[in-house]
Amino acid sequence: MPIPSATTDADLALAAELGQQLRVDSVRSSTSAGSGHPTSSMSAADLMAVLVSRHLRYDWDNPDRPGNDHLIFSKGHASPLLYSIYKAVGVVSDEELMTGYRRLGSRLEGHPTPVLPWVDVATGSLGQGLPDGVGVALAGKYVEELPYRVWVLCGDSEIAEGSIWEALDKASYYKLSNLIAIVDINRLGQRGPTEHEWDTETYRRRVTAFGARAFVIDGHDVAAIDRTLAQAGDLSGEQPIVILARTLKGRGFSEVEDKEGWHGKPLPPEMAERAVIELGGERNLLVRGPVPDDAAPRHPARANSAAEIKLPAYDLGQKVATRKAYGDALAAVGARPDVEAMDGEVSNSTFADEFAKAYPERYFEMFIAEQQLVAAAVGFSVRGYRPFASTFAAFFTRAYDFIRMAAISQANIRLVGSHAGVEIGADGPSQMALEDLAMLRAVHGSTVLYPSDATSAAALTKTMADLDGVCYMRTTRGAYPVLYDAAETFPVGGSKVLRSADDDQVTLIGAGVTLYECLAAADQLAGEGISARVIDVYSVKPIDTATLTAAAMATGGRLVVAEDHHPEGGLGAAVLDALTGNGRTELDIAHLAVRVMPGSGTGEELLDEAGISASHIADAARRLLT
Amino acid sequence: MPIPSATTDADLALAAELGQQLRVDSVRSSTSAGSGHPTSSMSAADLMAVLVSRHLRYDWDNPDRPGNDHLIFSKGHASPLLYSIYKAVGVVSDEELMTGYRRLGSRLEGHPTPVLPWVDVATGSLGQGLPDGVGVALAGKYVEELPYRVWVLCGDSEIAEGSIWEALDKASYYKLSNLIAIVDINRLGQRGPTEHEWDTETYRRRVTAFGARAFVIDGHDVAAIDRTLAQAGDLSGEQPIVILARTLKGRGFSEVEDKEGWHGKPLPPEMAERAVIELGGERNLLVRGPVPDDAAPRHPARANSAAEIKLPAYDLGQKVATRKAYGDALAAVGARPDVEAMDGEVSNSTFADEFAKAYPERYFEMFIAEQQLVAAAVGFSVRGYRPFASTFAAFFTRAYDFIRMAAISQANIRLVGSHAGVEIGADGPSQMALEDLAMLRAVHGSTVLYPSDATSAAALTKTMADLDGVCYMRTTRGAYPVLYDAAETFPVGGSKVLRSADDDQVTLIGAGVTLYECLAAADQLAGEGISARVIDVYSVKPIDTATLTAAAMATGGRLVVAEDHHPEGGLGAAVLDALTGNGRTELDIAHLAVRVMPGSGTGEELLDEAGISASHIADAARRLLT
Repeated sequence: MPIPSATTDADLALAAELGQQLRVDSVRSSTSAGSGHPTSSMSAADLMAVLVSRHLRYDWDNPDRPGNDHLIFSKGHASPLLYSIYKAVGVVSDEELMTGYRRLGSRLEGHPTPVLPWVDVATGSLGQGLPDGVGVALAGKYVEELPYRVWVLCGDSEIAEGSIWEALDKASYYKLSNLIAIVDINRLGQRGPTEHEWDTETYRRRVTAFGARAFVIDGHDVAAIDRTLAQAGDLSGEQPIVILARTLKGRGFSEVEDKEGWHGKPLPPEMAERAVIELGGERNLLVRGPVPDDAAPRHPARANSAAEIKLPAYDLGQKVATRKAYGDALAAVGARPDVEAMDGEVSNSTFADEFAKAYPERYFEMFIAEQQLVAAAVGFSVRGYRPFASTFAAFFTRAYDFIRMAAISQANIRLVGSHAGVEIGADGPSQMALEDLAMLRAVHGSTVLYPSDATSAAALTKTMADLDGVCYMRTTRGAYPVLYDAAETFPVGGSKVLRSADDDQVTLIGAGVTLYECLAAADQLAGEGISARVIDVYSVKPIDTATLTAAAMATGGRLVVAEDHHPEGGLGAAVLDALTGNGRTELDIAHLAVRVMPGSGTGEELLDEAGISASHIADAARRLLT
Repeated sequence: MPIPSATTDADLALAAELGQQLRVDSVRSSTSAGSGHPTSSMSAADLMAVLVSRHLRYDWDNPDRPGNDHLIFSKGHASPLLYSIYKAVGVVSDEELMTGYRRLGSRLEGHPTPVLPWVDVATGSLGQGLPDGVGVALAGKYVEELPYRVWVLCGDSEIAEGSIWEALDKASYYKLSNLIAIVDINRLGQRGPTEHEWDTETYRRRVTAFGARAFVIDGHDVAAIDRTLAQAGDLSGEQPIVILARTLKGRGFSEVEDKEGWHGKPLPPEMAERAVIELGGERNLLVRGPVPDDAAPRHPARANSAAEIKLPAYDLGQKVATRKAYGDALAAVGARPDVEAMDGEVSNSTFADEFAKAYPERYFEMFIAEQQLVAAAVGFSVRGYRPFASTFAAFFTRAYDFIRMAAISQANIRLVGSHAGVEIGADGPSQMALEDLAMLRAVHGSTVLYPSDATSAAALTKTMADLDGVCYMRTTRGAYPVLYDAAETFPVGGSKVLRSADDDQVTLIGAGVTLYECLAAADQLAGEGISARVIDVYSVKPIDTATLTAAAMATGGRLVVAEDHHPEGGLGAAVLDALTGNGRTELDIAHLAVRVMPGSGTGEELLDEAGISASHIADAARRLLT
């Protein structure tokens, strides 16, 4: 571990100078771009100057070095400050800063994203950087056992987000002394004063009550900052650290300092000139702080695992819930040391508890805090791991902003939602995922899987471990017959044609529970001499366009799609997209979906009430044929 | 105000008996249904027995009586307890309880919903009842000025949800002494002990730090409960109240009391028999507590307002952003005394600040806490008001679970999201709503509006005030020319055909910013002798099927749909649903949407990069015609 040298007056003077340079460059870059948040950058400049020059252990030439500290700007709108730091450490040129920031095609985007190698996660939706940091810190403390620290710069406005308190709660529960939140309390939000302005005592009481070790400092006193960061980063305690720094928005330029009306506004050019003069002029300090020791993580990531995974095998016809198959398979996939699992206090329902029993050291209970659940997965992904996060499918709606941002963060995460649709029965609509397919399909680059039987669910669980991006699997509460032999393969983007004949007159399309209804409907229709093709669309995104197109052509464009989901954005929409995406097409589609507000009942009753049971599917097919 | 009489020993004995009855009925009803959460009901039975018999001011025969207290079960899985209370006060029969609970078609659903007249909001997704209660309490204290109290029964597991802390933060900020949270700390969650078990001191420190007045009690000591509820409900202070009640899960039946493994499980019949015996047998107490005084709210709700609303008028061709028109119109709609507005600390961007300036007493700043923002709107809806809640469209993803539950709650709320799509330009993808149409369309019974110009945005704002259900309007950052005269009408479910001729060869479909791109494309095509129909789909859900179908028929099935949204679940999906929902159809569709991960740039650059600008639309049209 590098021992920091005692701080000299020269060190502090350099940090103060660096702080002024970061301010100057924040002003210059945002003025050149004609947009951005200079005043929100200026308030935190001294904090970051001391951190970067004296405490952050980071090898700027090797951002993938395992022992590097992490620096996450939860207040992503302070991107001018972050990019000015990159200039100060010499990885971004002044020219790039002045001509790239916020321009088309530039990596210096309006809010930080991991198109930059030194950025871990995309921020800009407030209250997410700290929860993501909890995930990174969990990986460091419990999986890698590496002494890196996770420094998170937060704004004061974002402390109103509940996700911040989910993060602090879990950080103290897991004793994450490697997590240090630095809150830039500049008193002013976008449209006026923040809720608590400079009431650092209220902040202190709250973060302390949530288990953090708190420091209250003047965020412009470089000596105080230096002393505090040294204590905060010592890893000796068992508490996360929160540094509450009282600062001035627009600090250093008297025309905007601590004034309302300057949030998110670049200074006009003449004003920027005056600001640069008042701040002491342009500087080109090149400053680097300490680098970490070399170290290797206990459980390796970022490498294909050679571990042999023996998936569970099920007998054809045996009744097994796909959620159970997920748990069985996840425990098997756990043979890969780069796989972690986490759950939102329902692991005995999602069956993530099978992994928890097999690999307790790589299982993380997130209790009922779904935003932190997804953020923890994102954090593990930052460190190259392959997390699986599970809860009831309905409750992933709680974390949609985190899922959306995970895609922008280029995170590779696996979400598994159980208890989908009206099939769950008696618990009623609050527990029924009826929007999840729409929600997850709309995420950029996502994969959406919806297996019907245990064999396919288990196979897809294994496949997910290697998928990039946001990957979602929907599982079902009830137990249904195994349809596929263990030797069957289920490529992403594929489908299975379960019934097919040359004289097929109509195609029945289902996934999950509705596939069984389609099969039963096909049986009914066969008894009437109507031959129906049946397709299992286990891969909803990407979808098997070729097989669906062939079926549509073979059956005169007559298709019945049945889904246990609201009609918008789910399986039916995916099928329509596929069939209309490649030129002229003639279709005669019956789209059966949950168009009612369901109540309680048995799963069978509710499938029937919603009009997605076998008899409704058969009726729809008959109508298409008349 | 009814003054409660001094409590006698007989009162306490009755409450204790009632508690046992509620336990017995919770066991009986869930066993009869074969599912449900008896043990989670038994822990809170004494708390509720004392509340209902002694403190809750409620006219059970007149649930709409304005002065009634509110009782919200944030721990909605304790529905057996709630329904057993309804039996005890005589509004639900024992027969209904025993034969209805969790059955098909019954109003006694697995988790409470407002199909019951005494239920304010649907619960069952944890951590929502308290934020909803904040909204109800805000209405009572600031709009109605009525002395009702809002009692919210919370579970201990749900305290891990960040939304609980958003709620307490806002409750103390707004000094909601009319809000009383009763936390049933029974130590056991679904799969094992809760994070903090019986650590009431940690809970006390946290809620106190968040500004609540805290009481820590034994939740089975009826005298202590009675004393505490009397203090909690006195409305004299300026703080919300949190009662931290230490309880035993399964209290009163030794075979399950404080034991793991009994969450969410009905007792098998023989066990239920033993439980009833140990609890002292079946009872049929009929108990009612105090009723409220008659009172009338200051600002009336639940009545059509006769206020004259003078909408802003814009000149044709004038450049006005739809978000600005929303603000202008909202300020005009504020002439109705039943309209409130709230925003997530971006009111100067959404232009909700125009309402805030005109009607400060009916504007509620929710700061950066989008879950509480939506929950507050739900709370106002409970009281019959017509709330408008606004933030950046992207940040409504933070509250998707609340929006989904609002639909189950039969809430009438209006959500307005600004800064949609890549059009916003330099700020980058974290601020760009590209999933919001998919998210809102998938909500049951929702209305989704997406006006292009200021006239339609203003008209639709006024229309929204009268719409039921979850209503969403998407607005645009930039200013674009006014297309419509102020006299034009914009019915929900309608559209506008802006270009049309008998020889139209292709239809161009847009909404919001892409409508302007469609118009420019039509101009380009006209120059080549290609006549293109152009349709403004300002109503995305419901959508104008007739006009779209007529256009498809008139232009040989050739349609170009362009949307500033990811390709899944948005405008394109809505158009496809409309065109394939009524029998055989032949289509040749080009669907232009944001299929890339955008970065920064100008709006124009990003529209072009995403392939949804005029030149791409014209190219797509040409391809359809070759």
